[in-house]
Amino acid sequence: MTETQHHHGYIQQKDDYLKRLRRIEGQARGLQRMVEEEKYCIDILTQVSAMTKALQSVALGLLDEHLNHCVVDAARAGGPEADLKVKEASDAIARLVRS
Amino acid sequence: MTETQHHHGYIQQKDDYLKRLRRIEGQARGLQRMVEEEKYCIDILTQVSAMTKALQSVALGLLDEHLNHCVVDAARAGGPEADLKVKEASDAIARLVRS
Amino acid sequence: MTETQHHHGYIQQKDDYLKRLRRIEGQARGLQRMVEEEKYCIDILTQVSAMTKALQSVALGLLDEHLNHCVVDAARAGGPEADLKVKEASDAIARLVRS
Amino acid sequence: MTETQHHHGYIQQKDDYLKRLRRIEGQARGLQRMVEEEKYCIDILTQVSAMTKALQSVALGLLDEHLNHCVVDAARAGGPEADLKVKEASDAIARLVRS
Repeated sequence: MTETQHHHGYIQQKDDYLKRLRRIEGQARGLQRMVEEEKYCIDILTQVSAMTKALQSVALGLLDEHLNHCVVDAARAGGPEADLKVKEASDAIARLVRS
Repeated sequence: MTETQHHHGYIQQKDDYLKRLRRIEGQARGLQRMVEEEKYCIDILTQVSAMTKALQSVALGLLDEHLNHCVVDAARAGGPEADLKVKEASDAIARLVRS
Repeated sequence: MTETQHHHGYIQQKDDYLKRLRRIEGQARGLQRMVEEEKYCIDILTQVSAMTKALQSVALGLLDEHLNHCVVDAARAGGPEADLKVKEASDAIARLVRS
Repeated sequence: MTETQHHHGYIQQKDDYLKRLRRIEGQARGLQRMVEEEKYCIDILTQVSAMTKALQSVALGLLDEHLNHCVVDAARAGGPEADLKVKEASDAIARLVRS
């Protein structure tokens, strides 16, 4: 296994993530169109909530694969790297929960 | 005051919202690039959190203006429209809080 | 209508809110028992999520009644009070969305 | 190391968690008093946000210790247990992010 595979579990589903992120980019463009055409505020907010959920779902997917690959591999390798990886993951989780 | 101005408080800052949404669109493209180039998971998650915060901030701004214009105007006009507008705003707030 | 009724829409459902808050207090005690008895972390986290949702739901209910009563009344009364009430509500919504 | 220590990393800081949960229980009682005394809605919402943040912080602490102990130990032990532990942790994270 290469270094890359060790650290980037999401790569197996790279195309899926790219597709989801392109859809999210499309939602950002859709929001601009809604503001441009002066659509009703509440309808814009509904789209923002949908987009936030889509982003969150991408984040949770990436995090799951990160735990499955990077954190588990570091734990197996042992040493201080495991602590570092868990600390890093916990910080990322805190940012997600608080955002 | 026209109907449009009554219902779309955000229009006074339309350019500002468009600028923020274009930046959010750019963040979505940046995320695709990071996945494409197989960047480190945690760095991608940091970007997702920043993008979520930017989106939330747009939503809170739109909601504030919606309350200031649409809901206040409906309250002043009286009748069942005010109840409907508050209900609609509360539902949008619940979606934001839960997303 | 008295001043109190004007500003505290939730009072009509005071008993319901007290009941929900007592249940939330019970959940906080339940969590202490789980930690005391050294229950499994994931089960504790599930309870924390349930309690957070219950709290959020109380907040959304209070906010809805606040908009329906306090903000709508201030809008009808006119003057700078309406702006102040909307600003206050928007700040509270931002704290909820970000917490 | 006993089974219990393996699975419950938070036990080292049990007293700290109990203290924080007792404070959260106190906040739930304070909220009941505020509703009982018909305090201003916005002030109640400010307290709800503070209590939600305190709960979230307990959850993030427990999760960090869970990853550090339970998940890392399972990863080291190898076998299907590691996958199960990561899946369980990811599900708990998703519930926290969405609550």
